[in-house]
Amino acid sequence: MKTKFLMSTPAELTDRTMAAMARQVMSPNDPDFQALYRHTTEKLQQVFRTRNDVVILHGEAILGLEAALVCLMEEGDKCLTLISGSFGDGFLDWVQLYGGEPVVVRVPYNAAIDPADVEKALRQHPDIKLLFVVFCETLSGTLNPAGDLCSLASQYGVVSVIDAVTAVGSVETRVDDWHMDVCCVGSQKCFSAPPGLSLLSVSEAAWELMRKKKRPIRWSYLSLLDWKESWIDKGRFPYTPSVTDVYGLSSALDQVLEEGPDQAIARHSHAARVCRAGMRGMGLELWPTSEAIAAASATVAQVPEGIEGVALLGRMFEQYGVIASAGPPSLQDHQLIGIAHMGRSANPMRVIVGLAALEKSLADLGYPIRLGSGVGAALEAM
Amino acid sequence: MKTKFLMSTPAELTDRTMAAMARQVMSPNDPDFQALYRHTTEKLQQVFRTRNDVVILHGEAILGLEAALVCLMEEGDKCLTLISGSFGDGFLDWVQLYGGEPVVVRVPYNAAIDPADVEKALRQHPDIKLLFVVFCETLSGTLNPAGDLCSLASQYGVVSVIDAVTAVGSVETRVDDWHMDVCCVGSQKCFSAPPGLSLLSVSEAAWELMRKKKRPIRWSYLSLLDWKESWIDKGRFPYTPSVTDVYGLSSALDQVLEEGPDQAIARHSHAARVCRAGMRGMGLELWPTSEAIAAASATVAQVPEGIEGVALLGRMFEQYGVIASAGPPSLQDHQLIGIAHMGRSANPMRVIVGLAALEKSLADLGYPIRLGSGVGAALEAM
Amino acid sequence: MKTKFLMSTPAELTDRTMAAMARQVMSPNDPDFQALYRHTTEKLQQVFRTRNDVVILHGEAILGLEAALVCLMEEGDKCLTLISGSFGDGFLDWVQLYGGEPVVVRVPYNAAIDPADVEKALRQHPDIKLLFVVFCETLSGTLNPAGDLCSLASQYGVVSVIDAVTAVGSVETRVDDWHMDVCCVGSQKCFSAPPGLSLLSVSEAAWELMRKKKRPIRWSYLSLLDWKESWIDKGRFPYTPSVTDVYGLSSALDQVLEEGPDQAIARHSHAARVCRAGMRGMGLELWPTSEAIAAASATVAQVPEGIEGVALLGRMFEQYGVIASAGPPSLQDHQLIGIAHMGRSANPMRVIVGLAALEKSLADLGYPIRLGSGVGAALEAM
Amino acid sequence: MKTKFLMSTPAELTDRTMAAMARQVMSPNDPDFQALYRHTTEKLQQVFRTRNDVVILHGEAILGLEAALVCLMEEGDKCLTLISGSFGDGFLDWVQLYGGEPVVVRVPYNAAIDPADVEKALRQHPDIKLLFVVFCETLSGTLNPAGDLCSLASQYGVVSVIDAVTAVGSVETRVDDWHMDVCCVGSQKCFSAPPGLSLLSVSEAAWELMRKKKRPIRWSYLSLLDWKESWIDKGRFPYTPSVTDVYGLSSALDQVLEEGPDQAIARHSHAARVCRAGMRGMGLELWPTSEAIAAASATVAQVPEGIEGVALLGRMFEQYGVIASAGPPSLQDHQLIGIAHMGRSANPMRVIVGLAALEKSLADLGYPIRLGSGVGAALEAM
Repeated sequence: MKTKFLMSTPAELTDRTMAAMARQVMSPNDPDFQALYRHTTEKLQQVFRTRNDVVILHGEAILGLEAALVCLMEEGDKCLTLISGSFGDGFLDWVQLYGGEPVVVRVPYNAAIDPADVEKALRQHPDIKLLFVVFCETLSGTLNPAGDLCSLASQYGVVSVIDAVTAVGSVETRVDDWHMDVCCVGSQKCFSAPPGLSLLSVSEAAWELMRKKKRPIRWSYLSLLDWKESWIDKGRFPYTPSVTDVYGLSSALDQVLEEGPDQAIARHSHAARVCRAGMRGMGLELWPTSEAIAAASATVAQVPEGIEGVALLGRMFEQYGVIASAGPPSLQDHQLIGIAHMGRSANPMRVIVGLAALEKSLADLGYPIRLGSGVGAALEAM
Repeated sequence: MKTKFLMSTPAELTDRTMAAMARQVMSPNDPDFQALYRHTTEKLQQVFRTRNDVVILHGEAILGLEAALVCLMEEGDKCLTLISGSFGDGFLDWVQLYGGEPVVVRVPYNAAIDPADVEKALRQHPDIKLLFVVFCETLSGTLNPAGDLCSLASQYGVVSVIDAVTAVGSVETRVDDWHMDVCCVGSQKCFSAPPGLSLLSVSEAAWELMRKKKRPIRWSYLSLLDWKESWIDKGRFPYTPSVTDVYGLSSALDQVLEEGPDQAIARHSHAARVCRAGMRGMGLELWPTSEAIAAASATVAQVPEGIEGVALLGRMFEQYGVIASAGPPSLQDHQLIGIAHMGRSANPMRVIVGLAALEKSLADLGYPIRLGSGVGAALEAM
Repeated sequence: MKTKFLMSTPAELTDRTMAAMARQVMSPNDPDFQALYRHTTEKLQQVFRTRNDVVILHGEAILGLEAALVCLMEEGDKCLTLISGSFGDGFLDWVQLYGGEPVVVRVPYNAAIDPADVEKALRQHPDIKLLFVVFCETLSGTLNPAGDLCSLASQYGVVSVIDAVTAVGSVETRVDDWHMDVCCVGSQKCFSAPPGLSLLSVSEAAWELMRKKKRPIRWSYLSLLDWKESWIDKGRFPYTPSVTDVYGLSSALDQVLEEGPDQAIARHSHAARVCRAGMRGMGLELWPTSEAIAAASATVAQVPEGIEGVALLGRMFEQYGVIASAGPPSLQDHQLIGIAHMGRSANPMRVIVGLAALEKSLADLGYPIRLGSGVGAALEAM
Repeated sequence: MKTKFLMSTPAELTDRTMAAMARQVMSPNDPDFQALYRHTTEKLQQVFRTRNDVVILHGEAILGLEAALVCLMEEGDKCLTLISGSFGDGFLDWVQLYGGEPVVVRVPYNAAIDPADVEKALRQHPDIKLLFVVFCETLSGTLNPAGDLCSLASQYGVVSVIDAVTAVGSVETRVDDWHMDVCCVGSQKCFSAPPGLSLLSVSEAAWELMRKKKRPIRWSYLSLLDWKESWIDKGRFPYTPSVTDVYGLSSALDQVLEEGPDQAIARHSHAARVCRAGMRGMGLELWPTSEAIAAASATVAQVPEGIEGVALLGRMFEQYGVIASAGPPSLQDHQLIGIAHMGRSANPMRVIVGLAALEKSLADLGYPIRLGSGVGAALEAM
């Protein structure tokens, strides 16, 4: 009987969420299903702190991000693309693939974007139409100042698209106050809902831009307008939703709201602090350049010299059942080890499990360490 | 306590499938999950009777169909598009939207495509590259001779894309013997798996065509090649799969295979025969022009004159808990009523429930009928 | 894929109840579990219409009935035992086994107890201490006037024990107004909760009698006093409860209360009326001597001559998936066939399934019948 | 979102077991249910290492123990009752309550029974008929040499009843080799099945004794003979089983057998060793007089002076979500703290969670400790 502790992604489900998914499917035409669905988007509005429309796309967050870009961007559009990690680089790839003209602000993978650099770029390129920003670079364990960046974009009339996939639910996010136009979240991260859904808030300005495209994206799985014009405006689903995943999301959001979104954020923040203390306690160097930019949903440190990152991950899993994660694949020169504490695993005792497996595995692989030093430091920090 | 009988789509889940979905999510990197996933595609190969690759796309069947078209079709490609119902017309819309050049063979919405007409078109247009065919036009309750049509296409070197969404599992389908290049099925239909997954078999010829596109579709939620090159070839998921839905699909396929795919087809066929007998028994006229082309997964009849189709559906649901369906929305002149018997509801006793609700609702709405005549005829046909 | 329709006992669970049981167990010391448990007994008080204590014993209803008898009865006690079916005879066996002195009022298995006979017995035997009465004789499909009988007992200072196992939830039951001292219900019947729990309301008079026994029953799985003195009085469980079954019961009661207990009773009554009409419609003779005493949770008819009861049950199950039940085993001269409509199956469409399987099976076995006559009559009665 | 870690009783269920319980109930007459039930008892025979009959009683283990005693013991029977903890004392209460004549061998609550003392008693009282022995005294965290004791009893023709409630599954148990006549296990302990079932193996000698009682126990919830004569001999259930709990047990046993019973025992043993090391590492004194008699399913230590046991338990639960347990209530002079590692929680990482919560709570309450010393020692012991 192998017990697994998922300290990576997707976040583990609570047993309440699992149970919620053991329910009979409903017809999309069933008024009970439609009410549940509508109520789910209302709960998302609460968590996003927005009055904007919320659209659920029925695929993993990568679908939501691609859909946002495809629906908003015209070929030749100038797109301010901020890069502080692998997901930022992914945005750049897409902008190029779909024919946009990228303007890049880039910092190293362990740093955060400086709003001053962004302001400079916006001033320099007054024809920038879109901003792409990653709120939380999960594999780097870093946060960008998304609020400041989007407010800035808004001042320059630039429509912003935020990859907030592992941010919302773990750090304060105020979509309306911060003028975030399209904010995209993954169901399976800080909400501990099942994977399979992209959750997007869409501002009026963003809808406007989508409608003004030469050939607006409609009749497509990538279309956001289909959902606006069919479901939001007329109460008809453009296609059959992933019913069971919606059950899971609905239940997970109930749990977030019962706890209180602010309490949930505090819990993530606490778990992250405990995790950082533990990693430092065992002598590891954190990857982010400063604690101020450290993510609340995952903590990333450098694998000590002499230890193979792959062997470390393997040991943690094979021997102790803990699934941690490596850093960005493209980062050749640095071996990283990340422990996610998102959703259900944003819990100090779950962090202890991750840390215990990490320090024991390091010791098993020859790293000189007094066992208990990591966990002890984490307990101190609680 | 309202009990609902879902005789439309999605198909109801068995309690075993529901239970299978009440399981903790796994990491896509977990060897146990990878084994489960691989095993699931092997089960699909069995059910599809194919050695072709099987790709699971993580969205409702509409995703799979759009993906097939987008990945295969070049702008300007000549596409033989067969239309015998609303899904056929949907294909036509897409071909036009994405810049293909459609060659259309069309029959009325209650008829089936004649292979002779297709052969004529193929001869007439030797430059046809793709064939689009709908195996089962669910809303019409009709079947096209997909096997003959695909074999024909193959003889002319045309790559075929088959919307077999509600066909596989309910009627004999032999992907390899019939030379079906891309065969797309919906999880939530005759397998009684949860909605949210497109299941596609892809032939070598189809992969070839995808790779030869000027700009092959990669790095997209619509890409089939991503799955081929990442998952099938290297065992790495291009993005996080819808884990819980995969659990449900895997369990549902186990149940199909334990029953035997042929037995499952016989069960659908029996349920359809019983349903047709019951509808005729209550004096309704079946919509398909002949029983020979009647679908095995849904039976469609004309709503008798003097009865409002919407009122009939409403009565069946509100009063008796039975969810049936209407005909194609575009079919203005004919009101249709459809009872699906797919997956779990392809059961004679479940058909009885649908028929009882139908005849009682007709009577409630003033249709002259001796109660029991429909159900009685259905019982005779068992 | 064999679909089963359980029209016998236990009642089928709703998918909501099943899902409620897919939850992690809790410690009996966990305040959350204690609150859930307490809330569950409060819900039972509502459904029983009582302010008496409610005790959940953690075993099937037979445990509750035995416990009531063992805890209340002293050797030599005169016990008025009313017999109108097999469960009444079961009470008699117990009274004799445990050394009570039975005073019997008996009517045939298809009739109901006459309060006048009971009053006569009470007058004749002023030293009667206990009354045992079966509210609903499920296997006979009959009801006794339990309210009148208990009120009568109360007037004579007799403590009443009511086997209301398949009554509460399907017919009006007013524990306090009717002076029912110990009223015992099975979880798995009209509430559609899982089997495994006895639900008992206990009056002050009954507690008093238990405490006054020469050797009060304590430290035993049969003890009701343990629950009173440990759980009710001090909030400590005498032993670990069947946690998962309690989850199921709690959810099932929520569903009863959301529907409204009176609406649930009306639903059972409607299902019973439809079932009786259907059985008569196919020419069967109902077993109860009059409709006035027919049960709301099960309808019982005589198997027509020339048909084997066992073969009929077998045919219904093997061929059509419907599980019906036979009559009391001791009733040698009469073959009975019963269809239960309790909890989830107290639904007219589910009754149609039972009737359709019954009439078709009768026809299969050679019974001369126009198919549809039973179901037709049932549809008329809706 | 409060995450709980149940390190007490009942043992947590795996998600696979939870899912197994989210299934529709079946009729006791359904051949599928009967096969499942029979298969479950066969799996129990494997785990018990016995060819004796196995009976499942449908109530918590206390039912099984009471039933064994009531079914076997005649008033006036001389019963050798071994007492090394609170459950042993419970046996003594029952023997006296039901009129047996106890012969007592007693050691302190932190020690184990010495077979030599038992042999002496057997020689001294050749008329002893029954032996009652507790294999694992959970609240003390101690083991008795049950194998030796039962073999001894068997040599003297004494029928043995073993409370193996928290033993089987965590320590080697060989029912047949060791001549255990009635061996009773709780579902919710080392198998991680749901609470609500007593699992008993019964030898031929025990059946014989039950049948030879002046008034054999039949027609009772406490009767083992009912199950023998009705279910085992004739395939008819004496009453409706707790269907859902049986589903859970069946699945839990599958998991034990897939792991291998010996591997499961080794896992418990490893978890116990890690737990003892951790407790000692934080300066606590273990309660058992020696490690040789320490239980594999729970580890018990003394609460350090100056700390309130109740406050410690409260802190662990309120602050860190860990549910531990106190010692035997009757043990006034010693405050104990126990961490169970049974079934799913018999996992080194779960033990780490228990230890981390314990050392942190001790520190919070003023106990002088270097944080990490307990967990560090535990990690060393892995």
